[in-house]
Amino acid sequence: MCRRIFRLIGVQLAVLWMAQLSMVQAQEHPKLILTKAGVERIRAELGTVPLFDASLERMQADVDAEIAMGIDTPIPRDYSGGYTHERHKRNFLMLQKAGVLYQILQDEKYARYVRDMLFQYEAMYKDLPIHPKERSYARGKLFWQCLNDSNWLVYVSQAYDCIYEWLSAGERQQLETNLFRPFADFISIENPQFFNRIHNHSTWGNAAVGMIGLVMGDEELVERALYGIKDDGLKAAERDDDGGLIRMEGQKAGFLANLDEPFSPDGYYTEGPYYQRYASYPFLLMAVGLQNIRPEMQIFAHKDSVLLKSVYALINLSDADGEFFPLNDAQKGMSYYSRELVSAVNIAYHYGEKDPELLSIAKKQGRVLLTDSGLSVALGLREDKSLPFEKSSVNLTDGAEGKEGGIAVLRRDDLELVFKYTAQGLSHGHYDKLSYMLYDRGQDILQDYGMARFVNIEQKGGGNYLKENTSWAKQSIAHNTLIQNETSHFDGRYETGSKHHSELYFYDTSNKEIQVVSAKERNAYPGTELHRTIALIAEEGYDHPIVLDILKVEAEGDNQYDLPFHFMGQLMEANFQYETPAALEAFGTKNGYQHLYLEGYGTPSGINTQLSWYRSGRFYTLITTSEAEDELLFTRLGADDPEFNLRRDAAFMVRRKGHPSTVFASIIEPHGSYSPVSEIAVKAESKIKALKILYSDREYLVVGVEDQTGNRSVFLMVLDDADKTKEHKLIINNTEYAWTGPYYYLKSKQ
Amino acid sequence: MCRRIFRLIGVQLAVLWMAQLSMVQAQEHPKLILTKAGVERIRAELGTVPLFDASLERMQADVDAEIAMGIDTPIPRDYSGGYTHERHKRNFLMLQKAGVLYQILQDEKYARYVRDMLFQYEAMYKDLPIHPKERSYARGKLFWQCLNDSNWLVYVSQAYDCIYEWLSAGERQQLETNLFRPFADFISIENPQFFNRIHNHSTWGNAAVGMIGLVMGDEELVERALYGIKDDGLKAAERDDDGGLIRMEGQKAGFLANLDEPFSPDGYYTEGPYYQRYASYPFLLMAVGLQNIRPEMQIFAHKDSVLLKSVYALINLSDADGEFFPLNDAQKGMSYYSRELVSAVNIAYHYGEKDPELLSIAKKQGRVLLTDSGLSVALGLREDKSLPFEKSSVNLTDGAEGKEGGIAVLRRDDLELVFKYTAQGLSHGHYDKLSYMLYDRGQDILQDYGMARFVNIEQKGGGNYLKENTSWAKQSIAHNTLIQNETSHFDGRYETGSKHHSELYFYDTSNKEIQVVSAKERNAYPGTELHRTIALIAEEGYDHPIVLDILKVEAEGDNQYDLPFHFMGQLMEANFQYETPAALEAFGTKNGYQHLYLEGYGTPSGINTQLSWYRSGRFYTLITTSEAEDELLFTRLGADDPEFNLRRDAAFMVRRKGHPSTVFASIIEPHGSYSPVSEIAVKAESKIKALKILYSDREYLVVGVEDQTGNRSVFLMVLDDADKTKEHKLIINNTEYAWTGPYYYLKSKQ
Repeated sequence: MCRRIFRLIGVQLAVLWMAQLSMVQAQEHPKLILTKAGVERIRAELGTVPLFDASLERMQADVDAEIAMGIDTPIPRDYSGGYTHERHKRNFLMLQKAGVLYQILQDEKYARYVRDMLFQYEAMYKDLPIHPKERSYARGKLFWQCLNDSNWLVYVSQAYDCIYEWLSAGERQQLETNLFRPFADFISIENPQFFNRIHNHSTWGNAAVGMIGLVMGDEELVERALYGIKDDGLKAAERDDDGGLIRMEGQKAGFLANLDEPFSPDGYYTEGPYYQRYASYPFLLMAVGLQNIRPEMQIFAHKDSVLLKSVYALINLSDADGEFFPLNDAQKGMSYYSRELVSAVNIAYHYGEKDPELLSIAKKQGRVLLTDSGLSVALGLREDKSLPFEKSSVNLTDGAEGKEGGIAVLRRDDLELVFKYTAQGLSHGHYDKLSYMLYDRGQDILQDYGMARFVNIEQKGGGNYLKENTSWAKQSIAHNTLIQNETSHFDGRYETGSKHHSELYFYDTSNKEIQVVSAKERNAYPGTELHRTIALIAEEGYDHPIVLDILKVEAEGDNQYDLPFHFMGQLMEANFQYETPAALEAFGTKNGYQHLYLEGYGTPSGINTQLSWYRSGRFYTLITTSEAEDELLFTRLGADDPEFNLRRDAAFMVRRKGHPSTVFASIIEPHGSYSPVSEIAVKAESKIKALKILYSDREYLVVGVEDQTGNRSVFLMVLDDADKTKEHKLIINNTEYAWTGPYYYLKSKQ
Repeated sequence: MCRRIFRLIGVQLAVLWMAQLSMVQAQEHPKLILTKAGVERIRAELGTVPLFDASLERMQADVDAEIAMGIDTPIPRDYSGGYTHERHKRNFLMLQKAGVLYQILQDEKYARYVRDMLFQYEAMYKDLPIHPKERSYARGKLFWQCLNDSNWLVYVSQAYDCIYEWLSAGERQQLETNLFRPFADFISIENPQFFNRIHNHSTWGNAAVGMIGLVMGDEELVERALYGIKDDGLKAAERDDDGGLIRMEGQKAGFLANLDEPFSPDGYYTEGPYYQRYASYPFLLMAVGLQNIRPEMQIFAHKDSVLLKSVYALINLSDADGEFFPLNDAQKGMSYYSRELVSAVNIAYHYGEKDPELLSIAKKQGRVLLTDSGLSVALGLREDKSLPFEKSSVNLTDGAEGKEGGIAVLRRDDLELVFKYTAQGLSHGHYDKLSYMLYDRGQDILQDYGMARFVNIEQKGGGNYLKENTSWAKQSIAHNTLIQNETSHFDGRYETGSKHHSELYFYDTSNKEIQVVSAKERNAYPGTELHRTIALIAEEGYDHPIVLDILKVEAEGDNQYDLPFHFMGQLMEANFQYETPAALEAFGTKNGYQHLYLEGYGTPSGINTQLSWYRSGRFYTLITTSEAEDELLFTRLGADDPEFNLRRDAAFMVRRKGHPSTVFASIIEPHGSYSPVSEIAVKAESKIKALKILYSDREYLVVGVEDQTGNRSVFLMVLDDADKTKEHKLIINNTEYAWTGPYYYLKSKQ
């Protein structure tokens, strides 16, 4: 008792003293994520808010179990997945939780646990050498990379804030002098190549330094976090261990630069949703800290509320099951059920406009943060305010100014088509301009491979990027896009790719029966223009919407073009003859081709090539326009894969040689149903009879579709004038078509 | 009105007249599946029994939609999956439903629909030639095989029974004379090779003839159905189009023989659960008809209630998700959610002991039959009587007398291990003596391939068996069992296989911590004895139970042994060096080996070979005892597969040459967890340090396991004396072990 009173007096004295130095220190702790007032509100509602109480109970069970096991802060040794890595990771997660529990339950055992563990770290840190594992471009001390050290500090800042007032001034000084300040300096000043980038790594570093600075009331650290290190001595050409450039010439650094640069005005994060999810935690937690301690910054309003928009962008870039579309480097299966998205949704709800649609996501997540924002969400759910989050079609710009291409998601019924015409996406970008993936009820029908990495599984390359990520997953051939002369876009060069982006031609989803996106790429292959137009058409007489995919290539000379379709499922039928080789050999030697076996090859049987497959209860047919000399290829992944790192996925590929200009028109038609329980196959055959290119010149491109019952439809497009008000006229086979704007779709019944 | 009264009088007169001829006709219609009294009970409860009402509503919606579309009885033309096949199939399903609706709702539109369609069939049938498709050994008329014609009659008998009294005597006579009687004769007398077998085909034929006979009061048909055709003129060596023998010398025929022969006293159906499910419908429906019309037969008590036991056997042969273990020919995914199992569960509940555990299955199924038994189930659920169906370990004998081997399922926590030591399983049997499959939470971890067939998907070989079913799926190498000299068991010969079965050595699940099954096979390879023992051990210190698999081979000379593990999932790690070839070539030329590519090969690094993989959130490690000259092989399915009919599944194989006697001891250890959402890998490494064969002679076999923390356990077994009371003593490394019975398991902590 006595001790506690003494400590409180000490804290108050300290507060009074510090207040003269800085406004930052004027508030009582906790003040970073939890606030004094917030804790009071939380305590007042305890036992009356089901989701909050359940989350609290689970957290308490977790932490109590850890406390019972005792504290271990082993000498760092392992890569991710190994014991020391996972132990230190678990430690920082537990410290943060224990801090929160101390505040909410006011049970000192949690404060003691935090204090005791912090002092073990304090005792260890000052003599701790650089981590023995050498793979990283910025090795940490507790972990093999500064990134993970920064994770530690982002979480531990919160824990420290929670027991700040419970500690004696002497204890605080000891921790700050021997642990936090040197820790913050190590991940920033001593590692500018890590701290001073535009990259999710730096965001973690910036937030770590900023959050501990805010808690300690250390202005210098907060400024360093917000604006970066002034003179970092970095050279422009340095690279990280994933091959990413450290920084571009003249680039800014720090938390605000990392907010301004990689986020587009629509909230799209240029690395893609997988890394956005990862970076969202430091972005949003640091923002909450700034909002609480420096409300005058109005951080949530910054750049037209880009932080709040980014949460919506993330949710909109997830499939029907909440799994993020695997754009660029991304582990498939990551979803809005992750802990980072619990934070993101809670914070966007509380600091945004209390959007009831966010509550439905929180409800699915089934847990909330034990903070002011988590309480808000739990109260909203208690009051049954939730509305369904309606995902509709969306077009998100890329680039700090929203002028570097973008991502379009066309949605209708069960189908989601993700069309990528972005910038490079920093060091995690893939070389797949104008690629797309197709989802049906949350299943990928035409897949993007994702990344070649088993995150945190130590047996698989230390849980880090595998070499097949570069040799396969990043290459153009790993995506549903066009490959010229077996070479990846930008020749697979990051510096070149980083200078360019695709250009939106138009995006129009005003008519829900036909939603269209069209974009051009002029730099992937010098001298060649790729122009791809995707339409999601809800056509009468079809069970489901169909995808129309028109890819026009204009090149300077004769080339070889490969157009792969990474179909997922069991092959049903092909309408052409093909051979299957007796032995499987690698299909190429580089740019990803070395990882493919050729499983079959044939030539078209007519003007259309058809291929159908089955996946998860539904049939799919690809119909594509063919030329007599086209090669039709079945490939299988798995060559040059000595560690069995790659999945044995199939692809179907159209290869065409020798045209400076050519058009690939294709339809993907989902149809019918089958279940191994009913064993009833319904509409297992495509409804489409023919797909034809009816007209093609420099100005116009027209394709026609005829179904089995004789109905015809025509899609006309203007190739180089997206003016919505421009009138066009075209006569094809004695029929005159007149329309306004860049495209026109006409249905006619037999 | 007048017409209806007249009809009723006519019926009553007819009934009076017929009653003098036979007791069969004495009851009023409906009497086969629905009964007059049952319909009254159903009508009295309408609107008060939720599951029944919902099922009725769904059925009415189905039938109303069909009625609105009009009747089509096309000229037969297609294989399964094709229009005429699927149309006639849908017709019989609709006729049965419409008959039921007429009885329950007493709305004559359903009676008219049945009558009108029946008369279209009547008009068509008499001139209908044999079906044009020639693949079947017993071609039908409406369908390509008599089997499907029999399906039709099983359903249509019920429809006819429902409108029997509503029809005029003249209408009945016309239908019976021109349609039903010739139909019944065609599938029996004119196709004895189909009707007079012991086979699920014949069960359908028998039930079809019997059910229409019961409705028509045709004693001759009923007798023919029950006891088969007396003089069928069949020769013993004939075969069906799947390669199955038509019949054995001196075999009985008919419904009762099909009940007596393929069912063991435990209710295991020798073809396996997939076909048992298929045959269960005619078995149980015919039985209900006999129970209603010939109650004196006490058909449900027949052979110690084998029909009721069979329903329990079926449910026990399903995994955690209700999917049947794919023993013998079986399409993966078939489950107790199928329509046949709705019937089976309803009937077993109603005609059995109203077992509340069956109600929990019915609840999951979410629908009931619209019959007396369906009403019983729905009432039971309305009254909340349901109890969970607890699946525990089970050992089911095979063979009419229960003396031809069997199937054991060892269950503990999330794990299910299915060990097969049955007889051949008639023409759908696979050559996989002493094979097993392992399931964890309903996922196959060591798989059985199932069958190579896409049932009813016309694009894939007419929906019928693909040639890869014989060349791959039936072969021994497609299973987790031992293959000698690259030859399948019984040299893949059906006649040989049909003469033999494995022998149970012992089965003991009395101790839930260690459940053991052991069996021997002496005939798969003449001169070689295989003795396999599987233990499911719930061992302290392990997260999950582990599987201990001891396979002892005693041969007369030197052989090559292949022991494949068809692991499912992503390979994590191997503890030995291996090479991966630049080109993939077929691993063999016959007996299934021609479908495998060799993807990697190596040799053991020590006394144990370890391989770990990941599937659905969990890690698995195989630890197996190795000899220095063993070859360790990675194979991939897909060679010689010109139509892409096979899945590209992996296997790992141990190859050992040149021992007349050898032991393969292995452990499968499930451990840890991983999720792509948390990205946290827990216990990704095996806990096992070493697995050793400590002792091996003709009498005893002893293996020892040591874990990473130094705990040791020992499994001792007696090889040729399963006497539970016999005492044994053995000294190994100066330690004396004394125990009673065929095995002993000893744990010792470090």
